[in-house]
Amino acid sequence: MNDTTFRRELGQQLRVDSIRASAKAGSGHPTSSMSAADLMAVLLDGHLRLDFDRPDDPRNDHLVFSKGHASPLYYGMLKAAGAITDEELLRYRSFGSRLEGHPTPRIPPTDVATGSLGQGLPIGVGIALAGKRLDRLPYRVWVLCGDSETAEGSIWEAFEHAAHYGLDNLTAIVDVNRLGQTTETMLGWDVDTYAERARAFGWHAVVLDGHDLDAVEAAYTEAENSGRPTALFAKTKKGKGVRAVEDQPGKHGKPVADPERAIAELGGPRALSVRVAKPEFAMSTVDAQPAEARFPSWEVGEEVATRQAYGETLTALGESRPEVVALDGEVSNSTASALFAEAHPGRYFEMYIAEQQLVAAAVGLQARGWAAFASTFAAFLTRAHDFVRMAAISRADLRLAGSHAGVSIGPDGPSQMALEDLAMFRAVHGSAVLHPSDANQTALLVTAMADRGGISYLRTLRGKTPVRTGPDEDVRIGGSRVVRGSEDDRVTLVACGVTVGEAEEAAERLAADGVAARVLDCYSVKPIDAATLRAAARDTGVLLTVEDHWPEGGLGDAVLECLADFPDAVTVRKLAVRGMPCSGSPAELRAAAGIDADRIVATVHSVLGGRRNPFGETPEEERAIIRGEQGTSVGDPHDDTDPQSG
Amino acid sequence: MNDTTFRRELGQQLRVDSIRASAKAGSGHPTSSMSAADLMAVLLDGHLRLDFDRPDDPRNDHLVFSKGHASPLYYGMLKAAGAITDEELLRYRSFGSRLEGHPTPRIPPTDVATGSLGQGLPIGVGIALAGKRLDRLPYRVWVLCGDSETAEGSIWEAFEHAAHYGLDNLTAIVDVNRLGQTTETMLGWDVDTYAERARAFGWHAVVLDGHDLDAVEAAYTEAENSGRPTALFAKTKKGKGVRAVEDQPGKHGKPVADPERAIAELGGPRALSVRVAKPEFAMSTVDAQPAEARFPSWEVGEEVATRQAYGETLTALGESRPEVVALDGEVSNSTASALFAEAHPGRYFEMYIAEQQLVAAAVGLQARGWAAFASTFAAFLTRAHDFVRMAAISRADLRLAGSHAGVSIGPDGPSQMALEDLAMFRAVHGSAVLHPSDANQTALLVTAMADRGGISYLRTLRGKTPVRTGPDEDVRIGGSRVVRGSEDDRVTLVACGVTVGEAEEAAERLAADGVAARVLDCYSVKPIDAATLRAAARDTGVLLTVEDHWPEGGLGDAVLECLADFPDAVTVRKLAVRGMPCSGSPAELRAAAGIDADRIVATVHSVLGGRRNPFGETPEEERAIIRGEQGTSVGDPHDDTDPQSG
Repeated sequence: MNDTTFRRELGQQLRVDSIRASAKAGSGHPTSSMSAADLMAVLLDGHLRLDFDRPDDPRNDHLVFSKGHASPLYYGMLKAAGAITDEELLRYRSFGSRLEGHPTPRIPPTDVATGSLGQGLPIGVGIALAGKRLDRLPYRVWVLCGDSETAEGSIWEAFEHAAHYGLDNLTAIVDVNRLGQTTETMLGWDVDTYAERARAFGWHAVVLDGHDLDAVEAAYTEAENSGRPTALFAKTKKGKGVRAVEDQPGKHGKPVADPERAIAELGGPRALSVRVAKPEFAMSTVDAQPAEARFPSWEVGEEVATRQAYGETLTALGESRPEVVALDGEVSNSTASALFAEAHPGRYFEMYIAEQQLVAAAVGLQARGWAAFASTFAAFLTRAHDFVRMAAISRADLRLAGSHAGVSIGPDGPSQMALEDLAMFRAVHGSAVLHPSDANQTALLVTAMADRGGISYLRTLRGKTPVRTGPDEDVRIGGSRVVRGSEDDRVTLVACGVTVGEAEEAAERLAADGVAARVLDCYSVKPIDAATLRAAARDTGVLLTVEDHWPEGGLGDAVLECLADFPDAVTVRKLAVRGMPCSGSPAELRAAAGIDADRIVATVHSVLGGRRNPFGETPEEERAIIRGEQGTSVGDPHDDTDPQSG
Repeated sequence: MNDTTFRRELGQQLRVDSIRASAKAGSGHPTSSMSAADLMAVLLDGHLRLDFDRPDDPRNDHLVFSKGHASPLYYGMLKAAGAITDEELLRYRSFGSRLEGHPTPRIPPTDVATGSLGQGLPIGVGIALAGKRLDRLPYRVWVLCGDSETAEGSIWEAFEHAAHYGLDNLTAIVDVNRLGQTTETMLGWDVDTYAERARAFGWHAVVLDGHDLDAVEAAYTEAENSGRPTALFAKTKKGKGVRAVEDQPGKHGKPVADPERAIAELGGPRALSVRVAKPEFAMSTVDAQPAEARFPSWEVGEEVATRQAYGETLTALGESRPEVVALDGEVSNSTASALFAEAHPGRYFEMYIAEQQLVAAAVGLQARGWAAFASTFAAFLTRAHDFVRMAAISRADLRLAGSHAGVSIGPDGPSQMALEDLAMFRAVHGSAVLHPSDANQTALLVTAMADRGGISYLRTLRGKTPVRTGPDEDVRIGGSRVVRGSEDDRVTLVACGVTVGEAEEAAERLAADGVAARVLDCYSVKPIDAATLRAAARDTGVLLTVEDHWPEGGLGDAVLECLADFPDAVTVRKLAVRGMPCSGSPAELRAAAGIDADRIVATVHSVLGGRRNPFGETPEEERAIIRGEQGTSVGDPHDDTDPQSG
């Protein structure tokens, strides 16, 4: 068999295996696999350099299936490369199988999970960035994209950043099969327009017939030598090779109706194996040596913004840990990652205002073993929610820092206020959610994040807060701090971040009124310090949670969770931001939101029955406000009470 | 004063007012305002047709400040147009002022909130779509964009969709001032490359000097007559006109240091007013008449997927309510919005695989009074989280439907499973979060959504569920359904969606064991039916929540919230998805996640002390599992227990 014949046969085998695997599973996307089979046959047999026996070899090329639904094709490639058996292939999509409906790192050499479209290419940018700027190894990153997913803006973020960073080690192979799930794509087979777009974004672009093996061969060679990130726009046919489904609408995401006939039409099963090229270059070991670092710490009583402590600590980590890298979404002077950028310019990556690419690049960098910290305003991390969700499925080790938490940012207004970030990150599988109240806590938690696997989120404050924690205190993920407490405590104030100061002030005033209040700083919102909270519940019976966040999903819910099966009656009141904030000073906004010392004191008195609510509300009204029955009612969803009238 | 002199003076006035307002506030973005002042002066005086006295006139043009941080410029325009006084201008950013740090609809004629970059243009696409396809009025949509925000992929989603829908009524004015917050943009002043990109995306593009008033005049005229969506790439200088800040780095987002001197340099304050042109065309009233609609209902006992009920009900609503429109992210055959598309093709908009543009278009459509329902897989709505967050600040009326909830989708794997959507939508200001378990419930809730203001989210199931609810039952936002119950109930099973069936089965088996269990279907997760839940807590003392969702932020947390100040001891156990799922059948995956009838029965017996846990766990282990202390520990964030071993 000559090269071309072998590749043609291999392409047919990949089609046959896609049909077999999805027929056996009773679901899957064979037609989306068949369009790209020739593209992948040529890649596997001649261009990919990947040692399937040593998937962790740092010299390996990387193959990312951005169109993750073409998993039958991917698994067919693994079989052809000898990485899995035919038996395993036929356990596709069955319970417990490593061959899930969409690829995940459970099956090597898969770097990251795909299946949410538009993510593989921006993650590929991160891997390619690692190759060019950090690993400095000549591996290549190949990303198979669907044409439908070019409608995702994240694809164009990837195009722009790849060109900006000169990632000539990155090749996007776009399978232009024209047909989406329900309809034709916006551009159909207009590969020239795709190419024009890629060129306008600074890429080298090639248009080709994706079923012409010589054209595919030539295109890969061109990509390898273009000196620029290169996109191949390959005109293909969905379901290619089987008349019943080829280029037919309505054939997306389902097994081929008559698989035996389809397989016969493709020439029957084959048993080809490919000797995939291995990376052969020698590696020079250039391991950077960790240096002594002076970690920052602050005197108790100093006023420091926790975002500043984040930046300073990250910079020190950059000294002691050569694997630490940082990225930011063009707000590094706000998040304080600018300090790292200045100290370690070679390990800082500016991702501009493109939060999806920001997180995707971090996921790509960690796939190569780099400890990536990515930062922006916490509110804007919502932009990357789908990427964070998928990062958990990728089993990624990801450190995210969001600054400018809550109404306490003040005059910039609600668009810049993170009020849902705790909820978003608590509901990420295996996450840690940290919201320190002072600089020393922050420093210790940033270091703990560096040591931790999985997804860790640090929420920092715009404004300065007084340092309360000594530099040698036991601050850890899962911990908390008793700010004040005694045996006589009748109520526990549970706070985090900026509300710790409000709770402390409230406790002072309550003490003057003869009410002893415990103050807990729950800087670790997830995992939360259940033992300390349950002890407080036992000791005081009443807990008031106070957070600069919407009432749902944040500190209050985390506290309620760990008291869910508490054996005795406990009263928990959640103080949180219930009305839509506006601009104002931090103090004005905390007062309007009802998360300041005044509201804490009033609520405690009201709960303990000691005194009238100074806001003039009846007990019923007050409970309704605190329980959130105002502002979330059906009739008044916008809750546009003029904050001045309050 | 001739036209050009007037416009020059007006531009200077806008600069002066930007400096004055931000100096008074002590914060804000005057330099980002000054670069676009000439562009906006010419727009206001000659091209914008907007009756500021009648901001709700449907014939008005729309002006969207996608670069919302240029709010001082925007408010300066409102002052020049006579919509606000100088006194109000100087209350910029003060507490309670309508002139927030970033524009919101609190100040007319603002359609939507901006301030998260990259959102104004895709929302403008929605407004322009309303103008072309629904209102059929010749108003124009002008969007002022920053150059930095073109790094957001959502901008390119907007470019692609505007061209696809032929929105020649849309003009993007890109203020290319070169400087971002911390650094130069990727393209700097390379306006030609910007234009090349826009053209490749199907737009007409004009490059110009944004301080040359004649060039600006010519460009607007060109935009009005190009017959295509048109982008102006205007080369400008940040801080234009004041030497201390003009084209200087480090001058972003802060008041000018010496405002008096800067104002003097600009020629001092002016008091110009602009007679902004009013839309003058006559409107033909073409109000569509509502038709009689046959709303779907199903017999109790039928098996129907709730997504199917969504599509059928939406289609009926389309008959009875001419203002209802639908959009989908290229999965309309999965979400069942395809039924609406078929019945009402003129009111259906295919948004392809671009969830940010999907939600943004819905926000734009509702700004013109259309009742937009947008659907895609629930998991992929995370892609639009930032747009949903901002929609709440926009006081938008938005209906979102997410299909394919939870592990119960089966073989496609975790990338397609929504496991965080309840948490995400609960933490949206003023939201309703609905998760019906059967078709009749779904139909009634979809109708309720149409009547409701604010943001409503409906979560639907991929698989069929039995119809339990009669078509005439009282199903409402904030309600719940007692599936079964008696005076003897010793435990309450609280479920929603697919877990209602598991709870029902568990209750049957518990009854056989002599344990009476109440089953509540909490189809309204927010607002939740607190009265019924509190009654159940009073009657049974033990509640078990069961949800096909991560443990955080969903049904369990909502239940705990409304029992937070319950006067007696209550035990709540949350069953939820704690390990990372894989592919498999729905039943296998629910069993592995511990949210099936088996686990419910076992947990109830264990809580009530009646029987040994059949999974062989010690009581402590079981509690740890249920409380989530496994799978979220610091040491094992990935929680990659092989699901087969369980």
